[in-house]
Amino acid sequence: MSDADTARRKEARKFASGRNWDSWPQYQAAAGGLQNYWYPVAWSDRLGRKPLAVQVCGLNIVLMRSRAGKPHALQDRCPHRGVRLSQGSQQFPDTLSCPYHGWTYRLSDGEMVAAITDGPDSRMCGAVAVRTYPAEDRLGLVWIFVGDRPPHPLDDQLPEELVAPPPFAVGGRIEEREGNWRLYAENGFDEGHAKYLHRTALWRIFKVMPTWNKIHIERDGRWLYRVEDERHWEADFPGLGRWTNMRWWKLKPRQMEGRMLGNTGGSAHNDPYIASLPLKGFASLSLPGVLRIAYPQFIHYEFYVPVDENRTRYVGLMVQFKRGLARLGFYLHYLTVIRWLFHGQFSGQDHWMVAETDAPPERLYRPDVSVIEWRRLFSEVDPGCGKASAQPANPTVSDRGEA
Amino acid sequence: MSDADTARRKEARKFASGRNWDSWPQYQAAAGGLQNYWYPVAWSDRLGRKPLAVQVCGLNIVLMRSRAGKPHALQDRCPHRGVRLSQGSQQFPDTLSCPYHGWTYRLSDGEMVAAITDGPDSRMCGAVAVRTYPAEDRLGLVWIFVGDRPPHPLDDQLPEELVAPPPFAVGGRIEEREGNWRLYAENGFDEGHAKYLHRTALWRIFKVMPTWNKIHIERDGRWLYRVEDERHWEADFPGLGRWTNMRWWKLKPRQMEGRMLGNTGGSAHNDPYIASLPLKGFASLSLPGVLRIAYPQFIHYEFYVPVDENRTRYVGLMVQFKRGLARLGFYLHYLTVIRWLFHGQFSGQDHWMVAETDAPPERLYRPDVSVIEWRRLFSEVDPGCGKASAQPANPTVSDRGEA
Amino acid sequence: MSDADTARRKEARKFASGRNWDSWPQYQAAAGGLQNYWYPVAWSDRLGRKPLAVQVCGLNIVLMRSRAGKPHALQDRCPHRGVRLSQGSQQFPDTLSCPYHGWTYRLSDGEMVAAITDGPDSRMCGAVAVRTYPAEDRLGLVWIFVGDRPPHPLDDQLPEELVAPPPFAVGGRIEEREGNWRLYAENGFDEGHAKYLHRTALWRIFKVMPTWNKIHIERDGRWLYRVEDERHWEADFPGLGRWTNMRWWKLKPRQMEGRMLGNTGGSAHNDPYIASLPLKGFASLSLPGVLRIAYPQFIHYEFYVPVDENRTRYVGLMVQFKRGLARLGFYLHYLTVIRWLFHGQFSGQDHWMVAETDAPPERLYRPDVSVIEWRRLFSEVDPGCGKASAQPANPTVSDRGEA
Repeated sequence: MSDADTARRKEARKFASGRNWDSWPQYQAAAGGLQNYWYPVAWSDRLGRKPLAVQVCGLNIVLMRSRAGKPHALQDRCPHRGVRLSQGSQQFPDTLSCPYHGWTYRLSDGEMVAAITDGPDSRMCGAVAVRTYPAEDRLGLVWIFVGDRPPHPLDDQLPEELVAPPPFAVGGRIEEREGNWRLYAENGFDEGHAKYLHRTALWRIFKVMPTWNKIHIERDGRWLYRVEDERHWEADFPGLGRWTNMRWWKLKPRQMEGRMLGNTGGSAHNDPYIASLPLKGFASLSLPGVLRIAYPQFIHYEFYVPVDENRTRYVGLMVQFKRGLARLGFYLHYLTVIRWLFHGQFSGQDHWMVAETDAPPERLYRPDVSVIEWRRLFSEVDPGCGKASAQPANPTVSDRGEA
Repeated sequence: MSDADTARRKEARKFASGRNWDSWPQYQAAAGGLQNYWYPVAWSDRLGRKPLAVQVCGLNIVLMRSRAGKPHALQDRCPHRGVRLSQGSQQFPDTLSCPYHGWTYRLSDGEMVAAITDGPDSRMCGAVAVRTYPAEDRLGLVWIFVGDRPPHPLDDQLPEELVAPPPFAVGGRIEEREGNWRLYAENGFDEGHAKYLHRTALWRIFKVMPTWNKIHIERDGRWLYRVEDERHWEADFPGLGRWTNMRWWKLKPRQMEGRMLGNTGGSAHNDPYIASLPLKGFASLSLPGVLRIAYPQFIHYEFYVPVDENRTRYVGLMVQFKRGLARLGFYLHYLTVIRWLFHGQFSGQDHWMVAETDAPPERLYRPDVSVIEWRRLFSEVDPGCGKASAQPANPTVSDRGEA
Repeated sequence: MSDADTARRKEARKFASGRNWDSWPQYQAAAGGLQNYWYPVAWSDRLGRKPLAVQVCGLNIVLMRSRAGKPHALQDRCPHRGVRLSQGSQQFPDTLSCPYHGWTYRLSDGEMVAAITDGPDSRMCGAVAVRTYPAEDRLGLVWIFVGDRPPHPLDDQLPEELVAPPPFAVGGRIEEREGNWRLYAENGFDEGHAKYLHRTALWRIFKVMPTWNKIHIERDGRWLYRVEDERHWEADFPGLGRWTNMRWWKLKPRQMEGRMLGNTGGSAHNDPYIASLPLKGFASLSLPGVLRIAYPQFIHYEFYVPVDENRTRYVGLMVQFKRGLARLGFYLHYLTVIRWLFHGQFSGQDHWMVAETDAPPERLYRPDVSVIEWRRLFSEVDPGCGKASAQPANPTVSDRGEA
């Protein structure tokens, strides 16, 4: 190929609109969510005898709590005429009745146990049921299992340090946001954006972030870790000038002893439990969209729960392993600062960018190794739950009901 | 088939999503409305020389009243550039002019009689016309005939007792609501829902409704009647408990003498005209979506007029056969109570459920015999008016106009 | 053909819904705009170092001004992840940086000159670029050239009298409006509607307009002129009555000496520059959607800039060739009267009708010769820019970026 040809090709590539996602077919197929996972969907203390509607992986689900205090999850559609059961109410203990004609379903197995307006001898009882989903309370959240297999224990999926943790306090936000859940996960784990996008976040007002760095990704079990190799506080761009995040009032984080946890600020008082964890880096990510950011004194988690292909339920948790009075201090800190600056404005910048993201096509660059490794994880799991496959395979029965 | 097989099949049917409407093809085809019927579309006293836009069976129609007081209905689209004539105004008596260029149509036959901006010698006059629809005033309403045949007399279609009634008073509401007109009709005539859905309606605050009953449907002429065979004020559901609508402050309706008109409250003072009518039951339904509920002292009518496939014009009328001072009393009763409790909150519950209904698929039960008989009526009439067939069959003429 | 047949055919044509646009294929293909033209998109004094997003011919474009004061126009999409560059900011002189990861583009040629979060040695620099569009300031407006050829001089496209005009003053409005740009152009040049639609405009409160007239269209260079042949102040419509715009308080415009400029009011003090122009009529129209209305003392221009197929950027300019104090008087007149009555209410009536227009199908009449001649112009120019063809023909390159 002549030099002129090479130059021409190089020139053409400059304007190339980028590549698509064909090389990650499992990733592409998971737009609507991944099957056979537990998802946190609501605060436990918001769930009682009043039905609560949620949407996960494109499925409409109604939650309700039994007398024994157990959460239950049922398909949110009465088979009679398609009315949402979440519009109904409890007429008998541990059941939920459709508001239209009083078709009444048992919470535990979804079976219709009474059609109130058809009397006790109704022939529909035992002949109609709605699907149920496994549900559990954990960490102050209600979790439901969406899949076509028997559920694995929720413990197998929780961040390991939360399975049997010391006493801890939790503050958090649950919000439904526009944008696909995978883009939220990529944004959360993305090495490049924090240093630039979030430079204006109040959360960072007293802390310098590097201008750029070099990283690699390490895998440990189901977790991917970003590990920093080089850090540059400022940079001179030829022909343009110097760029830096440093300001006279900002602190540079100290290197953490032994290992570098990334671009966070340091702290004089590391939490001993966090310090004892075998974390390979500041930020880690696992399927089905769980981000963990280990600060010296608390850990921040983000669960990106697929609502449908275009919406994501953001579940942000800040966990501190404190007891007694210290716990009270955390709640005070959370409610006065963290909730507004971190779970509010900082996280709002991510929301803004995910809503802006219009990929594919895309052109990836060096820091996107974090994104690429994340996409590779999808080849190891069950295919995503398109709405069709996740719904129970109920053939339409052409009986004429009982009428 | 082995017992195990039978059990498995039975189990599978429980979760079956239900059946579709393939067995009622005429009903399915009538989503956009039925042809060759009169439809009430507006209060007569709201129609004058100002054009009024309505949509019926997917057709855009403009109403206007002539000097002689007659209502007229024209296609609401100027053939010139597609502007709605209802945006225009009267420039000459008994005509309507398009707001854009003054193309002027005669109310009586839709013929363009002047193109104001083209002068008296315009060659378009007599060469362009818009379709007209038969229109009449009756019962305080403007009715228009939508169809492809000459209209039958409106009298043939009115509830018989309203063709030559004694003096009467009317109160009512006209509202455009979301949801298909057939679902409104089914909801109105549906035996099952009233006793459960409406148990919380203020309209029912002093009257018990049964918990369940058994009915059959009787046909008389064009009307279907719900006839009650058994009535149960309360019921014990095995393993669940007792359910009842009875409260200490509520009255049980007395059986009406001679025949049972259904789940309404009784009255010491039956209206003699209503008592004289050969009604076979409390609730009756006829095509094209007319519900009649005969109370001892007044009759309530609901006309479910198709706007398009997704919206319905609800025309609710309460008619009392009174004259003089009693009539005044009715209006007072209507405006202070009926309008808010019955045509408002009670009817709003129906609106809520129709908007919620997501059928097919569906699973019908014993009380839905009312729904099934209604759907059978559709096999006796002209096919529904899809937008395509109801519009005049005007081939596109490839002349170049007059320019 | 028998008389009966003729009558039947004539009757059928009356109701014919009209003809489509098949006979003007180039016009039909130009729904999204015309290529290889300059378009005014914003006021020059609104553009500085803050990026400004505009949409033209379906293209998303970001505008920014360099230190030297030159306007620049770039494709408004970062190739990295598809974020709009208009959401970003200037980090280095004469560049624009994406808000997400700091990818930084040179305004002059769109080349990416820095990926801030990837350091000075980023391999993406020089390998990625966004498309740029020629941009210029003229007449107080920023103009951009959309096309696939090198741009012709903007002078070749400006109304001739504005290329080297005497001192002048400009008042104007820029508004995005719903409706296709071609319908705005047709409405602006349409002979028929002004006399009828605008009869209620306050702008016309003291001036009579004719009831109807006869016109022909003359072509001069790229301009079409409406030339009036007959004018009728009032008309008697047989069987209907007399129709006129005349009122006792309204003035009839005097005929302008030598030639008739159409349905405008006359003026005792014609502007000498306007009087010297070789205009063949009051209203003239040229591609790509420029209307010129020559009043005795000022000229009004409307540029109908395609945003996309359904929206139009209306750029209305009122130009008076005055200097010194007279110029001040014009601005006073513009801000107190013209802006509200002409660019506001009068032009709002046009907006209303374009939004109402639902063509094709359509039936054209004698005054629509203006519309027909306009559509014929499209056969002389490059095909319209469908979104597909106007975007740079960038094949998706299946490299894996730099990661």
